[in-house]
Formats: sequence, structure tokens, C-alpha cells
Amino acid sequence: MRTDRLQALCDGVFAIAATLLVLDLPVPEDSRHLARDLLDQWPSYAAYVVSFVTIGVIWINHHALMDRVLAADRVLLWLNLLLLLCVGLVPWPTRLVATYLDAADEASAAAVVYGIVMFLLSGSFTLIWLWLQRRNDLAHPDARPRIGAAIRRSLVGPGAYAVATLVALVSAGAAFVLFALAAGFFAVTGRGPRVQQAGLRRAPWPG
Amino acid sequence: MRTDRLQALCDGVFAIAATLLVLDLPVPEDSRHLARDLLDQWPSYAAYVVSFVTIGVIWINHHALMDRVLAADRVLLWLNLLLLLCVGLVPWPTRLVATYLDAADEASAAAVVYGIVMFLLSGSFTLIWLWLQRRNDLAHPDARPRIGAAIRRSLVGPGAYAVATLVALVSAGAAFVLFALAAGFFAVTGRGPRVQQAGLRRAPWPG
Amino acid sequence: MRTDRLQALCDGVFAIAATLLVLDLPVPEDSRHLARDLLDQWPSYAAYVVSFVTIGVIWINHHALMDRVLAADRVLLWLNLLLLLCVGLVPWPTRLVATYLDAADEASAAAVVYGIVMFLLSGSFTLIWLWLQRRNDLAHPDARPRIGAAIRRSLVGPGAYAVATLVALVSAGAAFVLFALAAGFFAVTGRGPRVQQAGLRRAPWPG
Amino acid sequence: MRTDRLQALCDGVFAIAATLLVLDLPVPEDSRHLARDLLDQWPSYAAYVVSFVTIGVIWINHHALMDRVLAADRVLLWLNLLLLLCVGLVPWPTRLVATYLDAADEASAAAVVYGIVMFLLSGSFTLIWLWLQRRNDLAHPDARPRIGAAIRRSLVGPGAYAVATLVALVSAGAAFVLFALAAGFFAVTGRGPRVQQAGLRRAPWPG
Repeated sequence: MRTDRLQALCDGVFAIAATLLVLDLPVPEDSRHLARDLLDQWPSYAAYVVSFVTIGVIWINHHALMDRVLAADRVLLWLNLLLLLCVGLVPWPTRLVATYLDAADEASAAAVVYGIVMFLLSGSFTLIWLWLQRRNDLAHPDARPRIGAAIRRSLVGPGAYAVATLVALVSAGAAFVLFALAAGFFAVTGRGPRVQQAGLRRAPWPG
Repeated sequence: MRTDRLQALCDGVFAIAATLLVLDLPVPEDSRHLARDLLDQWPSYAAYVVSFVTIGVIWINHHALMDRVLAADRVLLWLNLLLLLCVGLVPWPTRLVATYLDAADEASAAAVVYGIVMFLLSGSFTLIWLWLQRRNDLAHPDARPRIGAAIRRSLVGPGAYAVATLVALVSAGAAFVLFALAAGFFAVTGRGPRVQQAGLRRAPWPG
Repeated sequence: MRTDRLQALCDGVFAIAATLLVLDLPVPEDSRHLARDLLDQWPSYAAYVVSFVTIGVIWINHHALMDRVLAADRVLLWLNLLLLLCVGLVPWPTRLVATYLDAADEASAAAVVYGIVMFLLSGSFTLIWLWLQRRNDLAHPDARPRIGAAIRRSLVGPGAYAVATLVALVSAGAAFVLFALAAGFFAVTGRGPRVQQAGLRRAPWPG
Repeated sequence: MRTDRLQALCDGVFAIAATLLVLDLPVPEDSRHLARDLLDQWPSYAAYVVSFVTIGVIWINHHALMDRVLAADRVLLWLNLLLLLCVGLVPWPTRLVATYLDAADEASAAAVVYGIVMFLLSGSFTLIWLWLQRRNDLAHPDARPRIGAAIRRSLVGPGAYAVATLVALVSAGAAFVLFALAAGFFAVTGRGPRVQQAGLRRAPWPG
């Protein structure tokens, strides 16, 4: 198996999980004040956007990670599947938060679950980098000296989600703001990969 | 990341969003007059066809756009993810319109939401073209002189959806007809890309 | 756009539509005789298998068709999207038939809808072949002399589904047997493409 | 059709089936003790993890299998579609087990259905190997002498699931532990493919 096939499977799960988020958006039944009922569903929209952006951030980071991998052994393959298991899970805590974010007493439990899933998701990146440090023949030679730095950078994600999960015990609203800020922060600060056209494999611009 | 991988992810979201539309088609429960109950669901079928064709138009336009992109920076990447966020959203306003199109008082709110989502979706194309104008080293050299024209053409979409959304405030039915006409118009007038066989990478026709 | 990208989008819709069929399989709620209740759901299993095999047949035929296409113009592109619109629709009549196949009075309407969708689906192949006959510069040179034969062969599908739909007006059960026989017949008689390994692009067998 | 296109379709079904598992995770409605209600749903989480890992194992095995195939005839193509039909089915018995695993009397029926689906799924691998033995011109020359061993190894899966299904008649809980152990065992013992970077087709690491 080539890394590009592994990445194609991962891309598939990313795309499907992100698109399944739409099923979490409810359509009010038999509404007599549809405009108001739709506005009342604002936690669903917020949760959709935050989860979609988070999956986007993870997708970009995952590409940056895989560009540094020469070959994958079984452990790396299964750490990747752990990552996918968490990505595929995202629509569920999203629906949970959307349903309970404005329910006074139960919002905390929903936000805690959201935080735990995101902690596991971002933490699986750290595990992959730790494995690449131990078996650094799997990493691209140019990338090997920088694995230590990558591990430290990868700790920011699980760290932020651990804090947000603790905050969720006190205030679900504050925790959700942290989830949104985390997604925005990673989107802005992440080292965006430079996307290059696959020139040789593409017909010239048709004019 | 190569532009063809970015496009593969986009294609995935397009294909999934289009196929998820089927989940918006209801099956009558415990119907005793199934033929009549199925005919009564005509807004669902109309909404399915209009949304499917709209996603098809966007998919074709997106390919034409990406053929003109040499490389993507972070801003372009996130404008693309904004586009995908809107595409992934399409099944929700579709379900909304299908549910409320023949409900006298609430149809307007549903059609307004449909219009807003389509406005954002087509508007994200304009944002991408505007960014390509500012950072025109990202565009294919042959395409650079034509970015201005592309921006003007890309304004037709959000313009049409802005008008249709205003119409929806008065008449949901008229607005929906405009959504359908817009999809049909773009399908007929769009500069269809010429699809070429990937000759060198395909075995000769086996006879 | 290259034909292989068009085909990748089509493959995506085929794979998603086939996999979404599983959502049509109900799980009995609060069952006290689960084994019996599961057996009572046999129309759902039959509909799942027949629709899955039908999508499989269409996928194989679509590959055989696209192997004969050199380039696609706008009409061909939209005929393809019509085909995809019908493929994406399949889970809906499947759920309809699964729900109503053993409901004495309403089964006919469900089977008629199933037949109509399959008629449109198989008929869109005929339309594509007819267009390739008219614009035969789009077809592979070796394939051009055989387009007439392909059109005639492609009429078997819509013909069979038209007959089955008429039968459905009288007996839903008999019509469903015809749908199953059609899928099986096309699976057995279709000219299976010879699948070849993409030798040069694959690492040698690792032992 | 090239084997890599067949594999792309299979990968699509694997990715979608795995990601659809999330739809089986329920969100409690109008819960007043959300934390407790979420913990009560533990069979859903267990079923999600076991089914996801099982699909992961099958995906890896399927790649190892396809690496040994030079070309596919119609029988091999349809055996593959049988495999996909079973993979696409997985979310359904998963939801069944999740719903009934802690329902005293009905858990057995649910676990039996899960076992049967997994038996068919793993058994379709055996059928593919048996066909490759009979038509060994379809197999890679280096792989031909080892097909006998591959058949014997492929019998472990259906054997284990047959035993677990029999156990399910007596104890659904014990059977589910066996399903989990089987997934874990195959994950640990399977001959993980060595994932290699598609070096020539990838731009050098961008630094």
C-alpha cells in the first residue's frame, strides 16, 4: 500500500464526516413560526461551523503530516485508523452539543463529551509523531531533525481541549467558545501547506 | 498538497452532498393512499432535482476554476473550505423547502434560508476570484488577463440569489421558480469544460 | 476536466448511493420477539440486495461506456449528471418498496415508483449512446462502428423496466421478481470488463 | 477497468460504511440526566469501536489481497461486489447490537445477526482466494505458489465468526466479547502491508 492510497482513504473519511454534519441540522416539525424556530436552533449552526472548521484544520494538518512519512508500518497504520475513528465520530458530539447547548442543566455533559472526542482526535496526532520519533526511518530524511519540534507543536491541540473540557464542567457556553477559538486559532496559525498544481498530469489550460 | 488532492477532497464533498439529498425524500408512513400521498410530496422531488442540478453546476464551475489555479496559499485553501462548508449544507435548506413549500404561512422563511445558503455558496466563488486577482501569481499565467472578466461573471450567481431571496419574502413559490431557473440557466450557459480522456494513463480500448 | 475525473465523481456517487442503502434497513423498536420481527422485515433485505446488485451492474456498464469516450462536451456531461441524479435516487424507491411490499393495497404504487426510477436510470444510458452516435468524434475511434449495436443493447434495460412497471400495476410481487431477475440477468450476461492491474504505477508484489 | 479503479471503489465503500457507523450512535432525547443516560448507552460505543476496527482490518486485508491480483474476470468482480455488499451492511447489525445488547431476552437474536453478517463478510475473502486458485492466471506470478496458504489463513475469519454466532445463541455478551477479540486479534496478527510513499508522483518535502 502506498501512502497516497492511505491518504485517499483518510481524505474519504474526512470528506464524509464533514458532510454528514449536515444531518445534525434539524428541520422544525409542524412549525407555526418557522423563522423564530429556525433562529432558536442557533446552537446547531454554531456546532456545524465549529465542527466543520475543526475537521478542515485536521485535514490540512494530516496532509502536512503524511507529506513527511516515507513508509508506514503496522503501528502507524493503526494510529491512523485511531485518528479516523475519532474523525468519523465528530458528527455525534456535534449533534449532542447542538441538542443540549441551551439546556441549562445538561449542557455541561454534552460539552464534556465534545471536548473528550476532540482531545482524543488531536492526541492521536501526538501519538503518530511520537511513533515517527521512535521509528524515524519511517520519516522523510529532511523531516527527521524536526520531529521533536513537531511533537511539541502537536501538544497544543490536546492541551487546549483538556483545558476546554475542564472548563465545560463549570460552563458549557465558555467551553464551546474555547472550542470555536481553538478551531479558529489553528486555522490561522497552522502552517498551511503550499498547494501545487499537479502540472505534468494535467492538460494545459484550455483557454 | 497538490491542487489535484484538494480537488479530490472537493469532489468527495460534492458527491456526498448530492447523494445525501436522497435522505430528504420522505417515505409516507402507514399510508392508505400511497399513490396520492406520493404525489402530494411533489415539493420534495422538485427540491431534490433543483438542488442536485445546482450542485452539478457548482461542481463544473469549480473544476473550471481549479484548472486556472497553479498553487494555493492558506487564504485560498480556507476560501475553498468555506465553499465546501456551504456545499455540505445544501441538503438542509433543501429539506426545509421540501417540508414547508406548500405550507402557506411558513414557506417564505424556508425559501429565504434556501436563498441565503445559495447566496453564500455562489458568493464564495466570487471571493476566490477576488483573491486570485490580488495574488495573481497563484493563477495560471494564461488565465491572469481574464480574472477581471471571471470576477464579473461570478457576480451573476450571488446577484441572482440575492434577488430570489428578496422575492422569497413576498412569494416562496416565485422564489423557488427562480432557484430552478437559475440552476437551469447556469447549466445551459456555463462554459462547460471539455472533458478529455486521460489517454496515457489508460489502457487502450479492449475491443 | 479529464474523463477519469468525471469517472471518479461518478464512482463516488455509485459508492455512496450503494452504501446509503443500509440506512433503509430498519431496526425494530422495543421488540419483544426480535428474531421474528427481523424475519418479518424480509422485504427490506430483498430490496437491499436487488438495489445493491443493480447499482453494481450500472457501475460496471458505466465503466465500459466511459472506456469508449474520448472527450465529453456539455451535453454528455449533463447526461452523465442525469444518470447520477437517478443513481443517487435509488435508496428512496428501495425504502419505499421495503416499507410497502407486503402491504396488500399499496404495494403496487411502491413497485411502480421503483420501476420508473430504474427505467429513467437505464434509459439515461441509451441517451448517452444516442448522443455518442450523433457526435461520434467524442467516441474512441475503435468504438465508433459499434455504437449502433451498443444502442440496441442499451434498450434492453429500459424495455425490461417498462414491462416490469406495467406488471407492477397488477402485481407488486411479480414486478419485484422481475426487478430481481433483471439485476441478475444483467450481472450474468453483461460484458464484464477485464480488470487489469495498473502495473507501472504499483510497487512489485512485496513477497 | 484497472484493478486500481476497482480498489478505489472498494475504498470508497469502506470509508463510507465506517463513517456511517456514527449515525448509529444515539443522542438521548429530552434527557434530564444526560451524563448518566450517555453512560447507559455503552453498548453503542462498544459496537461502534468493534465495527470500525473490523472494517479497518478488512480494508487492510483487502489491499493485501488486491496487491496479488493481476487482472479480474467477471466472477472475481462479482465476488468483490459481494464483499462490498457485506461491508456496506455492517452499520445495520451494529445498530441492532447497540440497541439490544443490554435487552435481556432479545440480545441473542441481535448478536446472531451480527455474527452472520461478519461470517458472510469474512467468508467472501475465502471465496475470492478459492477463485484465484482455480483461475491462477489472474494472480500475480509471485503470489501463485502461496494461494493455498492464503486460503487456509482466510478460513480463520469465517471459522471464528461461526463459533461466535453459535455462542451468541447462548450468550450475546460472550459472543460480543468474541467479536471484539476477533477484531483485535486480526488487527495485531494480520500481515500489515508496508505502506510506501508514492515517491515519484509527489513533490519533494517542502521544508
